[in-house]
Amino acid sequence: MARWFDEVVPDDMFGERTAEKAERRFMGDAVKIVLKQAAVQPQQVDYFIAGDLLNQIVTASFVAEDLGIPFIGVYGACSTSVQGLALASALVDAGLANLALAATSSHYQTAERQFRYPIELNIQRKSTSQYTATGAGAVLVGQSGGKVKITEATLGRVIDMGVKDPNQMGPAMAPAAADTIFNHLADTGRDPGFYDVIITGDLGSVGSEILLELMQRRGVPLGGNYADGGVLLFGGVRGTGVGGSGCACSALITEGFVWKRMCNGEIGRALIVATGALLSPLTWQQGESVPCIANAVALQL
Amino acid sequence: MARWFDEVVPDDMFGERTAEKAERRFMGDAVKIVLKQAAVQPQQVDYFIAGDLLNQIVTASFVAEDLGIPFIGVYGACSTSVQGLALASALVDAGLANLALAATSSHYQTAERQFRYPIELNIQRKSTSQYTATGAGAVLVGQSGGKVKITEATLGRVIDMGVKDPNQMGPAMAPAAADTIFNHLADTGRDPGFYDVIITGDLGSVGSEILLELMQRRGVPLGGNYADGGVLLFGGVRGTGVGGSGCACSALITEGFVWKRMCNGEIGRALIVATGALLSPLTWQQGESVPCIANAVALQL
Repeated sequence: MARWFDEVVPDDMFGERTAEKAERRFMGDAVKIVLKQAAVQPQQVDYFIAGDLLNQIVTASFVAEDLGIPFIGVYGACSTSVQGLALASALVDAGLANLALAATSSHYQTAERQFRYPIELNIQRKSTSQYTATGAGAVLVGQSGGKVKITEATLGRVIDMGVKDPNQMGPAMAPAAADTIFNHLADTGRDPGFYDVIITGDLGSVGSEILLELMQRRGVPLGGNYADGGVLLFGGVRGTGVGGSGCACSALITEGFVWKRMCNGEIGRALIVATGALLSPLTWQQGESVPCIANAVALQL
Repeated sequence: MARWFDEVVPDDMFGERTAEKAERRFMGDAVKIVLKQAAVQPQQVDYFIAGDLLNQIVTASFVAEDLGIPFIGVYGACSTSVQGLALASALVDAGLANLALAATSSHYQTAERQFRYPIELNIQRKSTSQYTATGAGAVLVGQSGGKVKITEATLGRVIDMGVKDPNQMGPAMAPAAADTIFNHLADTGRDPGFYDVIITGDLGSVGSEILLELMQRRGVPLGGNYADGGVLLFGGVRGTGVGGSGCACSALITEGFVWKRMCNGEIGRALIVATGALLSPLTWQQGESVPCIANAVALQL
């Protein structure tokens, strides 16, 4: 996927002393790139809508401080990228903003040590584990001037099927993805074939197989236009488990791979369904199951 | 303040096994009360916009699961209540929702053990410490049918004056409050006297004195209509330090004290300025200063 990204950084620490500061650099750089490409100054932007996986979404808050743009902090775990896009387009569509900027990030090291173990412990990964994407994505949304339109958004309900194993995030999130896709298609009166691509993520290979089965059972089978962003991101690279995850996963696939192919005219209509597992280490330790969500946006040329 | 609340619970554990589950009960009950008062069923509500102080806003996520309403998770630390209100009113105003429900909560025990120390350790509190409010507030926003109108919202920029002491949250947040109040008045062409009450919070007694000085220096002195929600909440009760804090603090004052007095006709115009300190224990341990934000809504009869 690397060729679809605006910047590829050889050092995932970005020369910083802590991984948290490095993650901040990823988000900050993504924002700088999008503002530069649009030739827009931060002070022209009405809202900065951002979130990340870190406790108290500190990546987003610190980037917001640097930008000086009124800040709306959001959290939807790995569904945050689409949640932010949906809110940005709502505010612009309503005339409450001329320009809204949505951003998200994740970092393998910050996520591992917060949600699981510090990577220095070298804990063996489970066969169903996903690998947190290190990166960031940012989108500037305005009334005009862009190549791609956000035509609809379907924000999801929280669905919890009782999965309690934090190494089974894909299977836990698949029912939420099915619910949101089903509702989106019902609300818009479309069938899955309306879209050139339907991309979930980050369900991983196991979760996306479950989604296919769930949609089949609901009588709305997904076809060859379906792919999962978690699976696409690492393309099966050894050590990445069942696929990528993290807030950056859907952002990188959507704002790199999909958006650039839409700009090229290769894709005309895309349904992006970002999925999130809304657990915390504390709820898991307290024996709670994993509430999940999926947020969708339709992108059209 | 207790007389302004719809429900006062003698047991802050709500009969639950963990304080986290108790906090969830507070938010869940606040939502139930508001839905009952409005005679609205959850399935009639288009969006549930909620957040709290817990890592990954798990209180809000679990309550969202119970409700089954499409969920927008937000985080603005103790400014979350107004952030949610502002987004709810934006979505309703734009015609993107008929009814939007905003909620927030905090709990002394869950906040202490996550941000500071488990209360069992009985750590001595600093003289400038604030005391996290245990409670929750919820607001149902619709095009019509209510007694109080949300007429404007001013979402804040992140301001960081370099305060690194997590026991000095009021002084850290005061400049953010000043910035948002100043911008709100400039944007609307109003002076502070336009409002019957201007309530910040949770700045506490020290922070609110700094705010008064900052506004004086900016040439927009606040008068006798100004009060801080953190100071109001506990009314100087022994052991509560310089005042209340937590997501519930502004919610309880706004949705109890202010809203009910507006319904009584005692207050006609209120400016609510909820402040938030966007730090995490990790950023503080890494030696970072505290980014702060303040979000404002104007309420009018």
